[in-house]
Amino acid sequence: MAREKLTGNMLIAQSGGPTAVINQSLVGAVLEAHKHKEIKKIYGSLQGLKGILEANLCDLGRETRANLELVARTPSSALGSVRKKPTPEDCGKVFQVLQQYNIRYFFYIGGNDSAETTHIINEAAQQAGYRMKCFHICKTIDNDLKENDHTPGFGSAAKFVAQAFMGDNLDNRALPGVKINVVMGRHAGFLTAAAALARVFPGDGPHLIYLPERPFALDRFVADVQRVYAVQQRCVVAVSEGIADEQGTAIAAKFSQEVDSHGNVQLSGSGALGDLLAKAIRDQAKISRVRADTFGYLQRSFCGVVSANDAKEARQAGAAAVKFATGGLFENGSTAIKRAPGKSYQVRIERTELKNVAKETRHMPDEFINADGNDVTPAFIAYAAPIVGALPKIGRLKAVPAVKK
Amino acid sequence: MAREKLTGNMLIAQSGGPTAVINQSLVGAVLEAHKHKEIKKIYGSLQGLKGILEANLCDLGRETRANLELVARTPSSALGSVRKKPTPEDCGKVFQVLQQYNIRYFFYIGGNDSAETTHIINEAAQQAGYRMKCFHICKTIDNDLKENDHTPGFGSAAKFVAQAFMGDNLDNRALPGVKINVVMGRHAGFLTAAAALARVFPGDGPHLIYLPERPFALDRFVADVQRVYAVQQRCVVAVSEGIADEQGTAIAAKFSQEVDSHGNVQLSGSGALGDLLAKAIRDQAKISRVRADTFGYLQRSFCGVVSANDAKEARQAGAAAVKFATGGLFENGSTAIKRAPGKSYQVRIERTELKNVAKETRHMPDEFINADGNDVTPAFIAYAAPIVGALPKIGRLKAVPAVKK
Repeated sequence: MAREKLTGNMLIAQSGGPTAVINQSLVGAVLEAHKHKEIKKIYGSLQGLKGILEANLCDLGRETRANLELVARTPSSALGSVRKKPTPEDCGKVFQVLQQYNIRYFFYIGGNDSAETTHIINEAAQQAGYRMKCFHICKTIDNDLKENDHTPGFGSAAKFVAQAFMGDNLDNRALPGVKINVVMGRHAGFLTAAAALARVFPGDGPHLIYLPERPFALDRFVADVQRVYAVQQRCVVAVSEGIADEQGTAIAAKFSQEVDSHGNVQLSGSGALGDLLAKAIRDQAKISRVRADTFGYLQRSFCGVVSANDAKEARQAGAAAVKFATGGLFENGSTAIKRAPGKSYQVRIERTELKNVAKETRHMPDEFINADGNDVTPAFIAYAAPIVGALPKIGRLKAVPAVKK
Repeated sequence: MAREKLTGNMLIAQSGGPTAVINQSLVGAVLEAHKHKEIKKIYGSLQGLKGILEANLCDLGRETRANLELVARTPSSALGSVRKKPTPEDCGKVFQVLQQYNIRYFFYIGGNDSAETTHIINEAAQQAGYRMKCFHICKTIDNDLKENDHTPGFGSAAKFVAQAFMGDNLDNRALPGVKINVVMGRHAGFLTAAAALARVFPGDGPHLIYLPERPFALDRFVADVQRVYAVQQRCVVAVSEGIADEQGTAIAAKFSQEVDSHGNVQLSGSGALGDLLAKAIRDQAKISRVRADTFGYLQRSFCGVVSANDAKEARQAGAAAVKFATGGLFENGSTAIKRAPGKSYQVRIERTELKNVAKETRHMPDEFINADGNDVTPAFIAYAAPIVGALPKIGRLKAVPAVKK
């Protein structure tokens, strides 16, 4: 027998790294909530968990539909974000606020750390005997959430990375040399792998792709670049910021002293890894024109590059969480994007247990990585292409050699 | 009395840093050349001066119109590029090739260094008594060519920078801290200044802008950031890669040993400057969350971000050079974009002397820079906005505070 409808207010927050479509999930959830009478007030917490702890909430019922639609198309977390894992003390404070505001529907948009936060809050609520629907809404450009075929935010970030490599490959073709581009992705190489979508013509870069899923050795890297350079007289390389040695220590971690409360070492926001790799090529491979760029925060928040499927699915994930919460079947959970088998691209949003996505990281499956560990396979391209969607069309001169005089 | 029409072949090449619209100029010139019967074969040199020296030419008459149009919309120099100043010895070799291929129309697309190269070749041709129409076609994302209101390539690069800062400002607003973004521009700050176009709402970054036109002092920079941070609890900074100390020495030059044959020290392709500035804030301002990104080569070659005006004018500049060369009035020169005075944005392409643009650098006029030397003025915004064109519309939540419980 279904329990009676739970009536009360809703609280939604955004957490972790922003994405280009995280506001689609926010707006999807808010617009869906308006359809359910058991949800009364709709509050947004400013800066995720921090806003809850400080009772720094806004009234999302006061937003016009037109403004919500504009915000949905705007990159980066409109409610503000945070990287914070709740301590037991925090949980007590969270409850105080949840009870004060009679929050019975709680939604937290984020990655695996945010799923962990949602899980902790849900467990604490259950222990306290406080009935609250508690849902995590999937999001991360890293694409590393368990249970998900892919995650909202990844498609748009991957589109940015692909378009960046399309242009950078052409730049490197015009002024040949070795070009190393460092791409975001702490433990999973999906975003770095998306660089492969940039290839249009034979010989196009990226010519080498290094992922955190395979141990990185500087000598093998130098040898790989030398081999490509000998044939092509140029080489474009995609490197994940998360590449790690045989012991699993991230190469970039050597340059970083910053660790967040989830235990993550700060890898982005520095050009040190790219510069280290460029120096190795300059010194050991004796190639003079070597450049390194670190794509940095542009990958997740660049304004104007969005995958249409990504935007649509992010909206659906937000709406789905509210549907799961109000549908009577589930007390809590996380939204997970599933893809139907077969050639045509079709996804649906399912509900999964919070513990299934909390904290855990999904890695690139072996079938997506080539045997040498320095490129992706056609299976990855088939997987990623529909998530990223159409890329700009580019051309190349036929460049028929002139008759020699 | 007009001299008789000069009949012969045409050679066109691209030089210096690629841009998102440099192929528009190439295609504009080729399509215009097809209209003039005195121009017989149309050759392209592969990799600029290098291709001429090696007689490595292609037959652009063999390209279909459809493929040329596709190439025009493709970023980065389709013919390849080079950074090379011709030595007197090179000039001899260049002539041999020009004569062998009966080149009477010569076009070189590039910046001030490329204008210098065109000037040298033109002078050498005149001295040798070899009649050849010799034109430079303006191009540079740095926007630093004399005689030009602005240059093809700048508008699209500026659009990329503006969209990057729009997103990055939102990212920094979501996860507050200090964010430093290093933007290209060796001696002129126009591209860095374009970051100011990202501002939409009150309080939006960039909050500080540092240009090569004003001496850079680390202590003033730290104090500026502290002042903004105290008010906003965050700070987004745009810094030109070309910022230099009181003596005019580029700060980034400390990290670089590479100099090209035009005497330019390599500044891009490293994250060192951004990391130095971030460290100064971390150490001296005692702010913990400090990140630096160096936009790097994405600024000039990113695929899919193009200013419509920029693309149009780049095409016109290429066509104009051919018109000047075939029109009977001029033997040589450079194309210069002039803007009509008044509120409506109107440009025309004029012909100027090669020596007027060769080697020289145009800087940001004083009226575009604020008194403190850490921001731009409304006059700059009025100047740059139509060159860059429409930017994506973004929204912000009204975020009405919830009634306190």
